[in-house]
Amino acid sequence: MATLSDIGAAATINLLSAITFLVAFAILRLQPVNDRVYFPKWYLKGTRTSPTHARASVSKFVNLDYTSYLRFLNWMPAALRMPEPELINHAGLDSAVYIRIYLLGLKLFIPITILAFAVLVPVNWTGNTLERLDDLTFSDIDKLSISNVGSGSERFWAHLVMAYVFSFWTFYVLYHEYKRIAYMRLHFLASEQRRPDQYTVLVRNVPPDPDESVSEHVEHFFCVNHPDHYLTHQTGFWALWGKTVDAIDYYTAEIEKLSNKEAIERERVTSDPKAIMPAAFVSFRTRWAAAVCAQTQQSSNPTLWLTEWAPEPRDVYWSNLAIPFVEITIRRLIMAVAVFFLTFFFMIPIAFVQSIANLDGIEKVFPFLKPLIEKEVVKSVIQGFLPGIALKIFLIVLPTILMTMSKIEGYTSLSVLDRRSAAKYYLFILVNVFLGSIVTGTAFQQLHNFIKQSANEIPTTVGVSIPMKATFFITYIMVDGWAGVAGEILRLVPLVMFHLKNTFLVKTERDREQAMDPGSLDFASAEPRIQLYFLLGLVYSVVTPILLPFIIVFFGFSYLVFRHQIINVYNQKYESGAAFWPDVHRRIITGLVIAQLLLMGLMSTKGAKQSTPLLVALPVLTVWFHKFCKGRFEAAFVRFPLQDAMVKDTLERATEPHFNLRSYLRDAYIHPVFKDEEFETPPAIDEEENNLLVPTKRTSRRSTPSQSKMGSDRGSDLGV
Amino acid sequence: MATLSDIGAAATINLLSAITFLVAFAILRLQPVNDRVYFPKWYLKGTRTSPTHARASVSKFVNLDYTSYLRFLNWMPAALRMPEPELINHAGLDSAVYIRIYLLGLKLFIPITILAFAVLVPVNWTGNTLERLDDLTFSDIDKLSISNVGSGSERFWAHLVMAYVFSFWTFYVLYHEYKRIAYMRLHFLASEQRRPDQYTVLVRNVPPDPDESVSEHVEHFFCVNHPDHYLTHQTGFWALWGKTVDAIDYYTAEIEKLSNKEAIERERVTSDPKAIMPAAFVSFRTRWAAAVCAQTQQSSNPTLWLTEWAPEPRDVYWSNLAIPFVEITIRRLIMAVAVFFLTFFFMIPIAFVQSIANLDGIEKVFPFLKPLIEKEVVKSVIQGFLPGIALKIFLIVLPTILMTMSKIEGYTSLSVLDRRSAAKYYLFILVNVFLGSIVTGTAFQQLHNFIKQSANEIPTTVGVSIPMKATFFITYIMVDGWAGVAGEILRLVPLVMFHLKNTFLVKTERDREQAMDPGSLDFASAEPRIQLYFLLGLVYSVVTPILLPFIIVFFGFSYLVFRHQIINVYNQKYESGAAFWPDVHRRIITGLVIAQLLLMGLMSTKGAKQSTPLLVALPVLTVWFHKFCKGRFEAAFVRFPLQDAMVKDTLERATEPHFNLRSYLRDAYIHPVFKDEEFETPPAIDEEENNLLVPTKRTSRRSTPSQSKMGSDRGSDLGV
Repeated sequence: MATLSDIGAAATINLLSAITFLVAFAILRLQPVNDRVYFPKWYLKGTRTSPTHARASVSKFVNLDYTSYLRFLNWMPAALRMPEPELINHAGLDSAVYIRIYLLGLKLFIPITILAFAVLVPVNWTGNTLERLDDLTFSDIDKLSISNVGSGSERFWAHLVMAYVFSFWTFYVLYHEYKRIAYMRLHFLASEQRRPDQYTVLVRNVPPDPDESVSEHVEHFFCVNHPDHYLTHQTGFWALWGKTVDAIDYYTAEIEKLSNKEAIERERVTSDPKAIMPAAFVSFRTRWAAAVCAQTQQSSNPTLWLTEWAPEPRDVYWSNLAIPFVEITIRRLIMAVAVFFLTFFFMIPIAFVQSIANLDGIEKVFPFLKPLIEKEVVKSVIQGFLPGIALKIFLIVLPTILMTMSKIEGYTSLSVLDRRSAAKYYLFILVNVFLGSIVTGTAFQQLHNFIKQSANEIPTTVGVSIPMKATFFITYIMVDGWAGVAGEILRLVPLVMFHLKNTFLVKTERDREQAMDPGSLDFASAEPRIQLYFLLGLVYSVVTPILLPFIIVFFGFSYLVFRHQIINVYNQKYESGAAFWPDVHRRIITGLVIAQLLLMGLMSTKGAKQSTPLLVALPVLTVWFHKFCKGRFEAAFVRFPLQDAMVKDTLERATEPHFNLRSYLRDAYIHPVFKDEEFETPPAIDEEENNLLVPTKRTSRRSTPSQSKMGSDRGSDLGV
Repeated sequence: MATLSDIGAAATINLLSAITFLVAFAILRLQPVNDRVYFPKWYLKGTRTSPTHARASVSKFVNLDYTSYLRFLNWMPAALRMPEPELINHAGLDSAVYIRIYLLGLKLFIPITILAFAVLVPVNWTGNTLERLDDLTFSDIDKLSISNVGSGSERFWAHLVMAYVFSFWTFYVLYHEYKRIAYMRLHFLASEQRRPDQYTVLVRNVPPDPDESVSEHVEHFFCVNHPDHYLTHQTGFWALWGKTVDAIDYYTAEIEKLSNKEAIERERVTSDPKAIMPAAFVSFRTRWAAAVCAQTQQSSNPTLWLTEWAPEPRDVYWSNLAIPFVEITIRRLIMAVAVFFLTFFFMIPIAFVQSIANLDGIEKVFPFLKPLIEKEVVKSVIQGFLPGIALKIFLIVLPTILMTMSKIEGYTSLSVLDRRSAAKYYLFILVNVFLGSIVTGTAFQQLHNFIKQSANEIPTTVGVSIPMKATFFITYIMVDGWAGVAGEILRLVPLVMFHLKNTFLVKTERDREQAMDPGSLDFASAEPRIQLYFLLGLVYSVVTPILLPFIIVFFGFSYLVFRHQIINVYNQKYESGAAFWPDVHRRIITGLVIAQLLLMGLMSTKGAKQSTPLLVALPVLTVWFHKFCKGRFEAAFVRFPLQDAMVKDTLERATEPHFNLRSYLRDAYIHPVFKDEEFETPPAIDEEENNLLVPTKRTSRRSTPSQSKMGSDRGSDLGV
């Protein structure tokens, strides 16, 4: 078992390596040649340009100004300086709220740490139980934990009271954060510029009509059922997406053959009635009418004419717009079963790969490698290296697997896909990292054991192991948390990739633009990892408070780094208006309930069984608190109030009475395949469109596209 | 253990007693003097009047036509004769759909019974396991059950396949029934006459405004946010309901003092600004606009301006309209905890009452009874009688307790209160009747055992006892089910009460009208009892098929009797349009899952452990099926499609272009306290109201009520 000084040494090493990363970052970021790696956001915003023309030849690449190196840590205060409203304006609400998760960690755990060190640490330290048991090896860490309090001691009242205090403090912090973010979201939506999705509703499962095309059917349905409000609609196209996209990639590469073939392909898709997607983006004259349509049921068959808020155009995941209701439910059933097997049985295929990926197997497949492998040094390296590699590869591709599963489930926007993937990843981390580290054996073995155990035995089994694993998790926080964040700010991969591309591929300024990889916050895999730290903090707050400062350092450091990154680096792909917050809130609540149950299990083994009735009220209260918050705030994240819509509509009518909404919305929701470079510029006002009395068929217009050039960056919008 | 002939004898006795009831009913119903007991529905409809004037004096009371007695069972075909559309028209959709629950039982279990007797009974009968075990007493019943198949036998494949077949048949029947009832509901709503609730939305949690009264605030809010659609609103009054109602009862009794006092009371309520309820019934010009308002969120604070479909006027539960959001969530938490304790710990207070309600206790409280009690005969009767009476009283008042709890939870309509009470009662029956009969010990002891058992041990423990309890449940079905239904048709209590009232109290024709007690379907306590039979049928279908015919007789007999009752007797208090069906569906699904889990537990003890993976798929499929049905149909029961609303609006505009909706709605939603006899007649068209350009304040009008007579039948609308 590790002593306090062991932990101190490990902390020092990890701090030193983190500082090394920071110094490297501080130096690299000052070099003009790396400017596009560390400040891409500003290039994309257009407020920064390549220093090519401005400076002398050497200083184009290396920063020769020695004084600037003296201020190598000045990015830190700079990262904190931008006020939140400006940050929202600069990086979007998603990013601004995302870093508030770290801030929430600080708000939650700093007071808890202070209290725990003031109350629980002295109580534990003077417990003197471990010293009396001579046969046990114990460390200073254990002396500070609940393990040092004797069985049936009166001292457990302190832990019991603190469990209540910490839970209520968590309620308080979570409640106010939810309230604040709901307000921020509503304010953000209310103060937003005009955006096409404010007027638009995504309609799916348009039923087939023998006499009308999908487009006509949509138009007639909404003209009849929203008579004063319907404005226009845009229908996507179905076709065989995989094929089409491949074809486009191919055409882009061989640009000479492009024009004819792609025009033919489009013509085919456009003219084939079966290729029309039974889904449409329907736009209304007012935000009020769009809010009404999105929130109401249109048809007596609730699986037809499904309406929901349209995602903003760049957030649409086009491939999933046209899945019928029955297929969706079957897909979700299959994926639910698949997630279960992936979480609990993922070790089986990996063990299988490990068993065949040994030296003999490699020699069989690649006989020419035999002389090399037979060498003693190489052999031992491979033998030490191989078993882990299958697992490592699996963990690296896991987020992609989970994203693919979410796509199969049929969600229609990238933001929802991210949230669904995050939910799956959280389950995986909870089972395989948290429980897997505490209880020995694979997840499948744990599952097997848990099924055989009774409902009140499980918390006991897990709870008992909790104090023993404190050292392990402290190390984990330093290696995975601290070092991971330090690595994030250094951006080694984008740095190398940029310079490789810059050296070998970049020919024009546009190429250089594309060689930049600003990246973005990866909610799907990053948020579940943060949740692990919340969970650890909540679980150990009563049991082993010494773990808490490490969590606080993680949250503080992360907050600093990610605030810097969203200001200077990341470029978000979409803006969902912090729609992910209910998920974050729910997962912290889950962590709190787990912590309470495990504490109950632990206490019952410490001869404090009479505490169980007192502790059992905590999870009940927590679940109730969750329901309360859900009722109080969740609607702000899934619905849009009519009052706010009416205020914006009225304001707009007063300030811009002659605005031509129809031409503004004309090409807002157009499939990337049909989107040409020229369409990206704000569409000019079409005089014919001003006459609202003449409804114009959108399909007929789009069936004769005149442009055919296809930027490769369009392909990435497909999310493939 | 009971043999087949024992069961046969019991069945004969029960059948004979049921037939006795039926003969008694057949004779009693033919007597003119009982006409109002057995045909009150037709009196209320106005198509039947007292035979007082029409006949000779003796035949006024006794039917002397001997030939009519020969056809004493002709009510049965008569009950079946009325076609369903006419039945819906006559008794309402709620009643018509309610008896379809029994029909569903027949549809479900007749094919299952045939299959089970064709396949499982021969398989079990030839199993020959019990005969070889000489030390066990076994009966013919057991020879027909799964107990007769030896451990690890290949014959279990038959049970496994049948479990799948029965589950899929249940899916098929449930799916088509849900579809059919969703269609019936939508058709019913679409073909309904004009009703105030079609245009009206219940708005709760109106925020206080310092400058405006609640009424003004509501009017301004909806004028702004639904500008083209808002028509009018009616605001309820707060005050101290309990007091007011008591006061009115008192005034009704002493009618001389009435006029002045009640007018003062009303004046006080009306003029006191604090007495105004922060809730209103807001009416719109079209059904479309009401559907929009009911389904959308109005304010950015989702706990203010809560809108929902208005219940129909007689369905409103007035006392609960004004509970703030926070209070509601706290009430529901407390009630959830209370339901848990009631279900698992109700034996504790009853045991306490039993312990003090012994002979000594009675002698202490009523010393004058001592000589009587001391007598040996009386003593033994009391001693045999007392212990059961506390439990019996508890079970009789249980539905009332559960209804009170639902009222505390703050639901705003009688139909929802009924549904919520039914859910609680179902839980109680499931735990205390079903599990309580299978596993020995009180519910609390079971809970204690279950917590200590592992997740896969519980189905095993319960499953093993299932075949042994078949005889008990067969007897239960006959005594509780068959006899209960036969008792229902005889209506002994209303019969006696009517004649008592008729003899001593009735003076006028109106009194006689009120002495009639048609009663109504009691969804809150009757539906959970039906669910017990579904559960028993599903659980025993694979295990002991001999139980199934008894279930079928129950469903068939009940269908006949209740179809007769809703045609001739019951008078429903409200019409919810079969809104309870999703609950019925969900509880049958619950029963199916329980049956599958118990079969899994049973099989695992019969040496057929390899069947577990095959059986585990069934509950997963069942849950998925439930989700599928929910997505496919549930919306029809909670939302109202805009398309249908628009069709009705358009039709109405075409056929009645000059209908004055405002005056039609004027007094639709008025609190019973303010509702006078005269208000019940269709309101005359008020010329002033035709001018829609002049909005009229409703409050000012209602504050000077001119009528003050209060019918005592109004009081019953309060649901108190």
